[in-house]
Formats: sequence, C-alpha cells, structure tokens
Amino acid sequence: MPPSEPDDDARQVMSADKAAVSRALNLVEDRRAESHARVADLLAVLKDSPKAAGGHRVGLTGPPGVGKSTLTSALARSLRQRGRTVGVVAVDPSSIRSGGSLLGDRARMSFDPTDKGLFVRSLATAGEVGGLAYAANSSVRVLAAAYDTVVVETTGVGQSEIDIVHVADTVVLVIQPGSGDVLQFLKAGIMEIPDILVVNKADHDELARRAVADLRGALRTAHAAGADRDRDSDWETPIVATSATKGTGIDELIDALDAHRGHLETTLQTRRRQGEVQWTLDLFSRKHGEHGVSTLGGLATLKARTEQELDGGETPLSLCERLSREYVAALGQTT
Amino acid sequence: MPPSEPDDDARQVMSADKAAVSRALNLVEDRRAESHARVADLLAVLKDSPKAAGGHRVGLTGPPGVGKSTLTSALARSLRQRGRTVGVVAVDPSSIRSGGSLLGDRARMSFDPTDKGLFVRSLATAGEVGGLAYAANSSVRVLAAAYDTVVVETTGVGQSEIDIVHVADTVVLVIQPGSGDVLQFLKAGIMEIPDILVVNKADHDELARRAVADLRGALRTAHAAGADRDRDSDWETPIVATSATKGTGIDELIDALDAHRGHLETTLQTRRRQGEVQWTLDLFSRKHGEHGVSTLGGLATLKARTEQELDGGETPLSLCERLSREYVAALGQTT
Repeated sequence: MPPSEPDDDARQVMSADKAAVSRALNLVEDRRAESHARVADLLAVLKDSPKAAGGHRVGLTGPPGVGKSTLTSALARSLRQRGRTVGVVAVDPSSIRSGGSLLGDRARMSFDPTDKGLFVRSLATAGEVGGLAYAANSSVRVLAAAYDTVVVETTGVGQSEIDIVHVADTVVLVIQPGSGDVLQFLKAGIMEIPDILVVNKADHDELARRAVADLRGALRTAHAAGADRDRDSDWETPIVATSATKGTGIDELIDALDAHRGHLETTLQTRRRQGEVQWTLDLFSRKHGEHGVSTLGGLATLKARTEQELDGGETPLSLCERLSREYVAALGQTT
Repeated sequence: MPPSEPDDDARQVMSADKAAVSRALNLVEDRRAESHARVADLLAVLKDSPKAAGGHRVGLTGPPGVGKSTLTSALARSLRQRGRTVGVVAVDPSSIRSGGSLLGDRARMSFDPTDKGLFVRSLATAGEVGGLAYAANSSVRVLAAAYDTVVVETTGVGQSEIDIVHVADTVVLVIQPGSGDVLQFLKAGIMEIPDILVVNKADHDELARRAVADLRGALRTAHAAGADRDRDSDWETPIVATSATKGTGIDELIDALDAHRGHLETTLQTRRRQGEVQWTLDLFSRKHGEHGVSTLGGLATLKARTEQELDGGETPLSLCERLSREYVAALGQTT
C-alpha cells in the first residue's frame, strides 16, 4: 500500500479522527528525514484549517511540582463540559536527562479514553532539546487543526529551552504558594510576563491571598523592569487562584482564557505570524548555528526575509528546508 | 606600535598585572574575528600556567534575589584575609533581554579597588547567549592563570543557557529559605545536583534549620531520580547555611570549598578535561548547529575525536576553528 497523501491525512486530522491524529503525531516524533518532509507537507495543508484559525492555543508552564498536570486535566474536563473539544500535548523536559519519559506526571492525568473530543499526548523525545522543541511545536499545529482548544504543558522557569511562547496564543504561568524563585525571575526581568498567572494549590485562603498579593507586587516590579516589552501593552495579566484537586477556580481560569482570546481577536494573526517567524528562525539556527545565520545575511536580514516569505504563503518547516539548501550551496561556492 | 605577542600578554596575565588582565578580558568581550583568534592564542599559552593547574574555579549559581553578589563579596574578602588571590566574573543573563547590564547587583558588591590580589569583572555582552557563554568561559580561563581562586557567578535554575558547570571545578548552588521551586527542580531530576549547597539569608535559626532539612530531603529524592549520574558518586553534597550580610557561615563555606578541591585532587584533570571537551562541542554546535555536528560524523564521533585532539595538546578555541574549516570544506566538496 503506498503511503497516504498529505491531503488525505490532513482531511482525517481535520475531522478529528483520533487514529489519524495519532498517526500524525507519530510522524512528528519520528526522527527520519523523510518523516520530517511529510510533516512539512502535512502542516502546510493543516495551517489553513477552520479549527486552526478559530481555535485557541494555550501554553501552560511553570516549575515542577506545582500541579500543572492535574490542572490541565481539570481544565480539559471543564472545557469538555462546555462542549469544546480539547487536544493536550505534555512535554517532559526531564526526559532529556533521563533518556525517556518518567511518566510520573502523566499518571496524575485522568481522562475518559472513550471521549472522541479529547486527545492527550505525552512527548518525551529522548536525547536533545532541538528534537523536543520541533516535536512540541509541530504537535500543537497538528492538534490545532483537529480540536477547539489545544493545551501545551511544559516545565520551565526563566529562559526555557523548550519555548512554547512562540506557539501559544495565551501563555499561562502556573505557580503555587511559596514559589518565591519564580517571583524573583519575574522581578529581575529575566522571565517574560505571562498573559495569565495561576496560583494553584490555593487550598488555604490565607496562603492563597498572600501568594496573589506577592504576585501582584512582582508584576509591578516586572513591568517597571520592562519585561513586557514584547507583549501587549493594553492587557493586564489576571491572577487566578485554583485548586486543581478540588476543582475550584477552573471556571475563573476558563473565563480568563476566553477574555484573553477575545482580546487577541484583532491581533491574533499578527501574534501567530510573529510566532511562526520566530519558529522558523529557531529551526534554522538549531540546524546551522550562528554561521548559518550570518552567511544568510545576519539575523535582521533573515528575519525580514522570513516575514516576507511566510506572508507569501510559505510555512516554517518548508522555508527552513529551502534556507538550508541555500546555505549549503552558498558554502559550496565560496570554497 | 604592533600588537603585543601572546607570550608577552600571557606573561603579564600570569604575573597578575591588573592592567594586563583587564586588557585580556576586553579582548574576550570584543566580538571581532581577529580578537577571537588572539583570545585562542592567549588561552593556548595560559592553559599550562602554574596558577591554572593549582588553582580553584568555583561556579556560584542560583535564582535571582538570593544574595549571590553579596555572598561573592563576602567570600572574596574572607579568601583575601587568608592570603589567597581572587578573580571574580559576574555574568548577567538579564542583559540578554535588556540589551545591557542592569548593574543593580554589581552595586551590592563592595571591594577594595587598591587590592592587587583581587580582580572583579562584570560580563554583560548584549544580545545573544552564545556570546555570553564564550565570554564567561574564556574570562574564567584568563583569571585562572592570574589568581588562586576564580569565582564565576551567574543566575539560573534548571537547564541554564549559560552553563558554568563545564568551567567550574566546584559548582555551588545558592538558595534562600523559601526557594521551593529550586527544590522541585532538584527533586524532578531536571537540575543536576551541585557539589555544595548554600542556604543564604539564613538569619533566622528556625527558618534556616527548616530550609536545610527540606534541602536534605530534596537531595535524597534527587539522588533517587539519578540526577547525580555524571558526578562523583563518593562526594556527599554538604549544605552550608550563610548570612552574607552578617558574614556568618563564610568560613564554613570556604572549608567546604577546600574539602571539595581536596577531594578532586586525583580527578581534577579528568573533570577539567571533560569540561574542555564539552566546551569545544558547545562552541562548535553554536557555530554550526546540528548539521555541523552530523556532517562531522555525529556527536559521539565528534566527542571521541575532541578528546583525542585535546589530549594531543589542542585547545578548545583553536580546535573549534579547525573543525569549522573542515566542515565548510566538506560542504564545498558535496555541492
């Protein structure tokens, strides 16, 4: 049997066929060059899907142990109860050290396996950050063509190596009472201000109140340090207190997500385009390093060109391939 | 006047001439290609200096706000009182966002400017992580040829982009009571176990005792998660409580540093060699990306070759240059 056409695969993904979505994500996790090429073709078709255009990509990040997985489960269940379909990608950066997913966190996620409107995948590409970043970004794009809301969950603080900011419409930072280090990263301007802040494990009123107050102070300092330079200036980061295990605060979180998605309506395309430009530059830099970037004219030139090409209908993966061929050819001419 | 010979420059650095050390560090921060070549020549001469062989390179890391700069000041003063000379490199990762050093931290460092046995430099190469990592690693190597103890201080938690582990003989992680997020990173096995743990701002006995107990528990979990795989198995990470502002615990920290330096005596050369191999691979990967690594045979092959070449007398910077020329030539032949 010949391999199926990208169009067929894409149609099945867009109809939220779970087997097709699963196959597409397997392709994303496959490291062979021919799989990369097929993913590029697939994403080129999927990018104009109605779901992708109208949907919401939520990035959920924070240090380990704050209950991100439990919160993701609770969020997904509540979204399903509201009739929305949900795709989840959980990225496990500890797999880079351990050479495989520990799956400890995943065990805490509980989902109904017969629910056709819910898809959950845990990513743990062993070995290198580059592979994991490529797989996470591509997986979100696959799921965004099939489900109303896509949640990508990853562990990090400060300058995270697996950057979900580029792929998320809305970045949610999850902390718990006592997350003093994250507050310091915010205050120091090293960590970018998220779109929504969640204080999870807010079971005790007094601790939760203090945590929210501390966060509000940290946000003021962060604004003063200029950590929101690249973000919307007219969006005030809401702080939501949740208890994922008790299920409290989840409705408020969904309201905050909807409010931010609504706020983005006019700027969504710009934000996503910026994210695609950044993803293209990341892909190319990981592949060819500083020498690749400087050979093609330096970062500013390459960025301007990427913007132009993506506006002309190119996609990040195929553009990166083309830039790569160009770079190799340029080196061949100079030697 | 012709530029001075590397040998002259190196001799002056080795005699701890402050003006010469300062010139060498300016060269390290200079981004021009000819400066990079001069740094490579300089480091090749400096690497066999008596100070570098017998000295101690201490990496001090931790989240913002835990008082690393004050602690570095207190540590440097105490080392000076014991008659040892000290070089300090403070790396400011927030400069990558802000495009320049905030210098807020540096203001908290207070040193005697007339002291010839103490040199302090703040690094804030604007713009990119690669430049900062190169400058930090090279600066430590310059200072190590001039001073008994070199302290490199940087902000980070988890997978830090500016990795000082490769250049430090001893990695000290500094936290404060309430640094719950760092504990979680340790427990999750995402963060490597340091050689020494410091609980700074341990002014209140009760809080400090609890922080030390929490850390001990986190270390046990981290060991179980295998986060010490790459480190010595027969070194038990000591936990030192300090108050840098009051000056308490600094003697205990120096004792712990000396104990670890003593412990390393037989394995120091191996550890430094591993660090040099890693630095070479990092330099080459940043310059030529995954394509560069795979073109030269993949990471394992490249690592084995780097080990061999460094054993044969090559230095990281000059080997990286040679690998780079080889890669470009290889591409020229295939196109």
